Amino acid sequence: MPFTDAELTYLSGQLLGRLATSHPDGTLQVNPVGFRYNSGTGTIDIAGHGMSRSRKFRNVAANGRVAFVIDDLASVDPWQPRMLEIRGHGEAIAEPADSAYAATAPAGLDGAIIRVRPERVISFNINGPVGDPTSRRVHGRDYAQPLETS
Amino acid sequence: MPFTDAELTYLSGQLLGRLATSHPDGTLQVNPVGFRYNSGTGTIDIAGHGMSRSRKFRNVAANGRVAFVIDDLASVDPWQPRMLEIRGHGEAIAEPADSAYAATAPAGLDGAIIRVRPERVISFNINGPVGDPTSRRVHGRDYAQPLETS
Repeated sequence: MPFTDAELTYLSGQLLGRLATSHPDGTLQVNPVGFRYNSGTGTIDIAGHGMSRSRKFRNVAANGRVAFVIDDLASVDPWQPRMLEIRGHGEAIAEPADSAYAATAPAGLDGAIIRVRPERVISFNINGPVGDPTSRRVHGRDYAQPLETS
Repeated sequence: MPFTDAELTYLSGQLLGRLATSHPDGTLQVNPVGFRYNSGTGTIDIAGHGMSRSRKFRNVAANGRVAFVIDDLASVDPWQPRMLEIRGHGEAIAEPADSAYAATAPAGLDGAIIRVRPERVISFNINGPVGDPTSRRVHGRDYAQPLETS
C-alpha cells in the first residue's frame, strides 16, 4: 500500500493533478488532469476528453514514463505548499476493465485512461503538522536514500 | 515575444506552477514551484528553498529538459480548466545576474534559479472566452502542426 490514510484523504480532496510525460525524442510535457485513486489496483487512474488520441497517452504507450503531482498552498505567508508526488510506471489503457472511471465515466470521456503505478511517493505537509520537518515522507524503492524531495 | 498580454496577465496572477524535469536515467519528476516572468529575458525564472542542491536543479544542469505548466479551474461544472503550458530549454543558473529574483529574493532562497526558455507555448481558455474553441492558442516551433494540446 503506497499511501497513508492522510495521503488518501488529500488525494480525494483535490480536483486536479499534473502529469508529466516524455515524448519519444525526450521532450517533456506536463498537463493538468482529472484523476481518481483506484483502491482495487492501488493506482492513480487519469482520464480526459480525447484521451486515447492525446499526445500524453501516446507518450505513455511508447515509454511508460510518468510523474504525477497534486499540491496546494496550505499558507501563502509563510509559504507552505503541500505536495504529494508520485513517480512510477505508466500504462496507456484504451479499454480498462477495472478503472475507477469505468462505471461512472463523465460524459465526453472516451474511456481510455493513463494508469500510474506508484514506485516512489514523496509527500510533505500532509502526514504531519504543516511546516514541521516530520511531515515529510518518502515511500518506495529509494526509501533508504537521503531525501531529495524537490 | 512568446506570450500574449492575456497570457502575461494569467502568469502574474498564479502563485504556483509545476515543473517537469528528467533524471539522467529517464525517470521523470514534477514539482510545484514558485516562479516569475522575467520580462528582460523573456523567460520563466524558478526559485526555491535549497534550489542549487535540489534534484530538479541537477536534472536541468544535466540535460536541459523541462516543461512547465500553470493552470486552474475556471469552472468545475462544466469542467473548464485554464492552462498555459511552456515547453522549452532549461538552464540551471547558480548565480543569475539578470533574474527577476535577484533584487527581491525572499528570505531562505539560495539565489539559484532554473530558467525556462520558451520554445512552444500552448494555452487554452486564456486568450478567449472560456469553453470557446477560439481560446486555444499554440505559439512556437510547431505552430504549423495540428494542435495536440493534451
